[in-house]
Amino acid sequence: MSQSSRSFDDPFNAFCKDSDAYLPGAPNGALSGLTFAAKDILEVVGHVTGGGNPDWKATHQPATRTAWVVQTLVDAGATMVGKTITDELTRGIFGENAHYGTPTNPRAPGRVPGGSSSGSAAATAGGLVDFALGSDTGGSVRVPASFCGLYGLRPTHGRIPLDGILLQAPSYDTIGWFARDAETLARGGAVLLAQDTAAERPTILVVAQDAFNLATPQVVDALRPAVDMLASLIGQVSRQMLAPVSLTKWSEHQQVLQSREAWESVRDWIDQVNPRFSFEVSDRYVMAKSITDSQVATAQAGRDAIATRVDEVFADGATVVCLPSTVAPAPPIGQKVSERHALRLRNSALTSIAGNTGRPQLTLPVAEVDGLPVGLSLLGNRGSDEILIALARELAEAM
Amino acid sequence: MSQSSRSFDDPFNAFCKDSDAYLPGAPNGALSGLTFAAKDILEVVGHVTGGGNPDWKATHQPATRTAWVVQTLVDAGATMVGKTITDELTRGIFGENAHYGTPTNPRAPGRVPGGSSSGSAAATAGGLVDFALGSDTGGSVRVPASFCGLYGLRPTHGRIPLDGILLQAPSYDTIGWFARDAETLARGGAVLLAQDTAAERPTILVVAQDAFNLATPQVVDALRPAVDMLASLIGQVSRQMLAPVSLTKWSEHQQVLQSREAWESVRDWIDQVNPRFSFEVSDRYVMAKSITDSQVATAQAGRDAIATRVDEVFADGATVVCLPSTVAPAPPIGQKVSERHALRLRNSALTSIAGNTGRPQLTLPVAEVDGLPVGLSLLGNRGSDEILIALARELAEAM
Repeated sequence: MSQSSRSFDDPFNAFCKDSDAYLPGAPNGALSGLTFAAKDILEVVGHVTGGGNPDWKATHQPATRTAWVVQTLVDAGATMVGKTITDELTRGIFGENAHYGTPTNPRAPGRVPGGSSSGSAAATAGGLVDFALGSDTGGSVRVPASFCGLYGLRPTHGRIPLDGILLQAPSYDTIGWFARDAETLARGGAVLLAQDTAAERPTILVVAQDAFNLATPQVVDALRPAVDMLASLIGQVSRQMLAPVSLTKWSEHQQVLQSREAWESVRDWIDQVNPRFSFEVSDRYVMAKSITDSQVATAQAGRDAIATRVDEVFADGATVVCLPSTVAPAPPIGQKVSERHALRLRNSALTSIAGNTGRPQLTLPVAEVDGLPVGLSLLGNRGSDEILIALARELAEAM
Repeated sequence: MSQSSRSFDDPFNAFCKDSDAYLPGAPNGALSGLTFAAKDILEVVGHVTGGGNPDWKATHQPATRTAWVVQTLVDAGATMVGKTITDELTRGIFGENAHYGTPTNPRAPGRVPGGSSSGSAAATAGGLVDFALGSDTGGSVRVPASFCGLYGLRPTHGRIPLDGILLQAPSYDTIGWFARDAETLARGGAVLLAQDTAAERPTILVVAQDAFNLATPQVVDALRPAVDMLASLIGQVSRQMLAPVSLTKWSEHQQVLQSREAWESVRDWIDQVNPRFSFEVSDRYVMAKSITDSQVATAQAGRDAIATRVDEVFADGATVVCLPSTVAPAPPIGQKVSERHALRLRNSALTSIAGNTGRPQLTLPVAEVDGLPVGLSLLGNRGSDEILIALARELAEAM
């Protein structure tokens, strides 16, 4: 890393040590004076996108373009100071990377940062940048934001162009971002969403009871004041079970569809390169390649039914749903694979609601359990990203 | 590698660069003056056994003993000059190691050396040592010996103690060795088998027709002169199909049983460490962990039936079976995983005969196809290792 580019230390192992990507912001833009980091799945022209895996990096050429989302922020004045560590090919939610090391969770020592946008979350939570870009396919912005005590947005699917990005599962992939405060989150949104954030304010709060049932009692207790404040801000409140059977069942449909898409994205490369992955990542790819077309068809029908059911919950256009962002705070670093497998599945039951429906979800750092951050999420209508951001600012001011 | 230990260059990437294990031979022994190398699954006191995987090495302590087989050779005067590269945890037959690089096949440039005893085969074929120790669970001595133009012995199962060895699948694991000539192979045997090599000479040669049917026509043609010479040395010859259905079916039983045992050997470590493997290795472990007890029971019954059938072929005690050591010469380096998958299965159909029955198999470098080595194998009765060695010397002199 040359001193002419990023000039600060990285005590959190957030940045890719083998990248000196740096893009100074345009002068006099809306984001001038802000710095940001970009997850190393976002292309920067002239730099090889690493994707959190050294064999991926070694077998790919420098990018011939810069990702739309990065270029748009730079054009608006923000300076991109570096690429950040990601779980291998974005396949993880805990943030442990066997090749490059696990970024430190600045808010929870000894705990994982969450992933796959681990380095972006660590860099933001540690104050190294003002905000950071991540991606969220199955929770990769929302989970690290919850674990690191950050605001994080998974936008409406398709709202942020995915040009110039190492895709995982295109029908689930989104680009989102982290910030330490709601205002900075909103400033990013004002540029990336290219609309004012003035929009219809929700008048109905749906508390997703089955989502809260998945969280630990400590998390439910810790989130209660924020939920109460949100309820008082909005007015009308109802508690509902979102899923007719279970949210876990819903998430299984995402597991099938996302896994199939993820396998299709890399199967030829894996066959050619025989790359090194941590066992857990390979395990998921091996399971993915055994998924049958019949399973995919069943899951797609399931996904369609989920969208219909969630549309019902939002039948009144001025509705917002709240739910825990994660079922628990960040687990310790170095847990056994088998121990955290169950935690991953439980978290997926929360994150797959937005994933399966393409809806935006914003997580707010409004609570702690034993000093460890945990987030509350707002789930909105497709295209209502600005409404969620505005509501987050309102709640932040009220808390 | 300090100059006080191994003092020669390693142009074949055969030796572990991160090990300086070196054991000078005892003076005035039967093997004095000979040097050998040891596959890095064999323990040497004070050195960490690497097993071809950096995460294995990083999570294990230095060995507290030296493997019986290494110590016995050193006590007999041979000098162990270094540890050699192996496929990860011995899980491969091609010799490509994503972490440490693929040892060069000195006899077949651009081709794989074969594995998993890749470095031991390369060091021997390249003349860096007089002989070398490998292990053979599913072909890991026989295949690289065939690919590198070496003599190689997979001993009778249980004949060479496995003390001080990183085991893969104990009911299949054996320790064997490579040499460039039959005499050196025999000198190793005289020490390790601790018996004279004078034993009953076979009077019946069974040519395993179904094994030859699996080889390419070029291999069959190339092996013909050696088979004819062997026939003339022995006298009585019969062609037989060994397997009632197919050798491939036989090998499937080994796949099941070996995979289960291999998974049991490492499952706790994998769960704890989440190690990095090349995808192909993880793929095999993931498949292994899904094997059911019912599949194991079926395979064990199959294995018992194979032993009974092969006992019939050997009903006359003075029988030896010949078969191709590999179905083809060494494939090119860097083949797609999918391309060589079929080759691995076909080779396994040959190697699993000895594997499933615990019989000794000796491969002789008696042929070439387009300048690439390919071996002919002798399969003997349990405990007849010395007979195979004596026959190999006889054939070597006659050819």
